[in-house]
Amino acid sequence: MRENGYGEVVSLDSPKDEEFESFRKTFGTRVKHFRRSCGLSQEELAERSRLHRNYISDVERGRRNLSLDALLKLANGLGINIRDMF
Amino acid sequence: MRENGYGEVVSLDSPKDEEFESFRKTFGTRVKHFRRSCGLSQEELAERSRLHRNYISDVERGRRNLSLDALLKLANGLGINIRDMF
Repeated sequence: MRENGYGEVVSLDSPKDEEFESFRKTFGTRVKHFRRSCGLSQEELAERSRLHRNYISDVERGRRNLSLDALLKLANGLGINIRDMF
Repeated sequence: MRENGYGEVVSLDSPKDEEFESFRKTFGTRVKHFRRSCGLSQEELAERSRLHRNYISDVERGRRNLSLDALLKLANGLGINIRDMF
């Protein structure tokens, strides 16, 4: 038994493909939630984060395997700490 | 004014190269701290995380721009939540 990155206990020994996908989707949903809480459009968040608008859109749909650098940019754009993104 | 990802307020509008580097190094130090707290060697953490031993070493020295997938693997290997890594 182990946790899945969000504190939920799961029974697998190692993350499976579906879990990575689910993890990215949950992350994307959180980004979208934070962006909307700030009243920002994807374009505005892109500008504040110095990322491309299409990239933000992909992140929110769970289609990007963001790097630490991109996480830092996104957290800056949203005005939150990275730990609050998880 | 904005925060730098760790909750410290900095005066730049966008992260600079030095800041990404500093951010990765701080992250690596935290990984090392958590690994040692668990009494794990780099080899043992590598095995538990399904990552290469050299990769763990690089991460701890701030030389890797980890992706979300790698973060999930590492958190699993350490038995912690991703949010606790930041």
